[in-house]
Amino acid sequence: MLRLGANESAFGPPPGALAAMREALPRTSWYGDPESAELREVLAAAHGCAYEEIVVAAGIDDLLGLCVRGYCAPGEVAVTTLGSYPTFNYHVAGYGGVIESVTYADGGAVRLDALAAAAREAHAAIVYLANPDNPSGSFASRDAIEAFVAALPPAALLVLDEAYADFVERDDLLAAAVVPRVVRTRTFSKAYGMAGARIGYALASRDVVETFGKIRLQYGVNRTAQIGALAALRETDFVADVVAEVARGREEYDSLARRCGFTTLPSRANFVLIDCATRPRAERLVELLLERAVFVRKPGAPPLDRCIRVTVGTAGERARFAELFAEAAAALDANPQPA
Amino acid sequence: MLRLGANESAFGPPPGALAAMREALPRTSWYGDPESAELREVLAAAHGCAYEEIVVAAGIDDLLGLCVRGYCAPGEVAVTTLGSYPTFNYHVAGYGGVIESVTYADGGAVRLDALAAAAREAHAAIVYLANPDNPSGSFASRDAIEAFVAALPPAALLVLDEAYADFVERDDLLAAAVVPRVVRTRTFSKAYGMAGARIGYALASRDVVETFGKIRLQYGVNRTAQIGALAALRETDFVADVVAEVARGREEYDSLARRCGFTTLPSRANFVLIDCATRPRAERLVELLLERAVFVRKPGAPPLDRCIRVTVGTAGERARFAELFAEAAAALDANPQPA
Repeated sequence: MLRLGANESAFGPPPGALAAMREALPRTSWYGDPESAELREVLAAAHGCAYEEIVVAAGIDDLLGLCVRGYCAPGEVAVTTLGSYPTFNYHVAGYGGVIESVTYADGGAVRLDALAAAAREAHAAIVYLANPDNPSGSFASRDAIEAFVAALPPAALLVLDEAYADFVERDDLLAAAVVPRVVRTRTFSKAYGMAGARIGYALASRDVVETFGKIRLQYGVNRTAQIGALAALRETDFVADVVAEVARGREEYDSLARRCGFTTLPSRANFVLIDCATRPRAERLVELLLERAVFVRKPGAPPLDRCIRVTVGTAGERARFAELFAEAAAALDANPQPA
Repeated sequence: MLRLGANESAFGPPPGALAAMREALPRTSWYGDPESAELREVLAAAHGCAYEEIVVAAGIDDLLGLCVRGYCAPGEVAVTTLGSYPTFNYHVAGYGGVIESVTYADGGAVRLDALAAAAREAHAAIVYLANPDNPSGSFASRDAIEAFVAALPPAALLVLDEAYADFVERDDLLAAAVVPRVVRTRTFSKAYGMAGARIGYALASRDVVETFGKIRLQYGVNRTAQIGALAALRETDFVADVVAEVARGREEYDSLARRCGFTTLPSRANFVLIDCATRPRAERLVELLLERAVFVRKPGAPPLDRCIRVTVGTAGERARFAELFAEAAAALDANPQPA
């Protein structure tokens, strides 16, 4: 099975992280450090922020839960983009909040003006924006994000999900590590290849980190993951290679799609949306790929439900995918579905 | 440093679990199974219950959060034993519940009659009982637990924390794997030596498991931990040896304490309370041990705050502890503190 559906890293964890985790395993009988102190120190130095402005948790999903629990009381409004990362919505529903959504632009961009306007109109308690976005792959520039933050209602907390930010040049991201009323979430699941380890962190102002400290699971992070993450941060060359290879892979997917009569949406993440023109065609293409043991996903909400989402694989996986995609595309056109 | 304060297993993870985790590490880039399906199947067979009556989470701390979030609304009452496992209280406070506590009997037993009476009187939404209990180590028999469950208000959910149940003969535990309105929590952190992995599970009726399914972190459990736990369940001989060695260690601690002029409280867990007669003496003994690089803990609430809690170590650690404890005890008597 070609596993290209979950935006996992095809390049695995950094070798140094793997070695550190292997060495740590015999001490699995010990609890990890509830403060993740060593990791936070290194992260603070890397981001140029204070130790007290970093909180480590069991992945971004965990951090999203803390954001919602801490900053969206039952009945309060959370604003997001329709069809963006669903775990945010899951937590809002679970904690009794009310979701209001703004649709993507047709080309996959998040409509920042509309999102901010919806937040102001609804007096939103919390706003979610993934940048780069999942599942669209679209990216808003530093300037656009700064203008967006300024346009939000002052009382709202912005969850700026930067799960895929490692695939973007640092200069394109916010200059300040920590912005008041903004929680920037980061993860070791994507460029660092450690999705199964469940470890991520947030950059946030001290008051937010303190609030999370009162509600988070104190021993919620796997000890081996803490040690692996610390080692992974030293593997800058490996991660830079992953980022470069992912960029090549995105270009290959775009060329492949064009050769087969499709287009792609611009992506800055480790996946690409291939535009199938209609939802039924996209659904059928997912099936045709699955019949060929290729696992990809399809966004569920319009306008992106006309696309399939393909994670960038290794060079070998991409070569295999190219063959099978061409086959599936030919079968799609041989047996067109009603639109 | 002799690390005998956190009730971690001195005997490490089972060798088969260690090997399985080592082999799994290169796939850290993949997410784990959100359903923990394979693990739940094996657990269901082992406990003689249905797959749908098991939920896997990131340790018992995580499960306690789900219990409180799911079954104790803000303002509702949670009943527990004063000084028992504090993470339950942490979650109750975090979700806006109200804690009511019953004290331990002087000898460390949980006063089940008083606990049930308090639950009835307060119309408790949720009741917490650890059995074997932490930090006392005391244990209530199967008959006593059955009578206790029957005496609770019918609407209350009982969290029966069985973190240390692996140290007890199976015949002494509840016969039925699943009891309505009871959540039995289990962990791989103690006898299975995997505290750092953050993985545990609950045995509960289907409706409770369904409720947890609506609020739990779907990808909250580390993939390597899932694979390690599955392998650990096959290591019955290793775990039986750990349990036997822990029983020997408890007896050694008791003999040691008597030789030095102390007594111990009966324990069925992997730790022993050594009775220092007064709180100041216990506090001083913790300090004297720390000066000798021995880490132990002390219960914070009366009546057990007169004791120190020592985790059972390996034979080598126990021998070293015996020397240092004798030294510390002599220093304690040489420099008596005010009572």
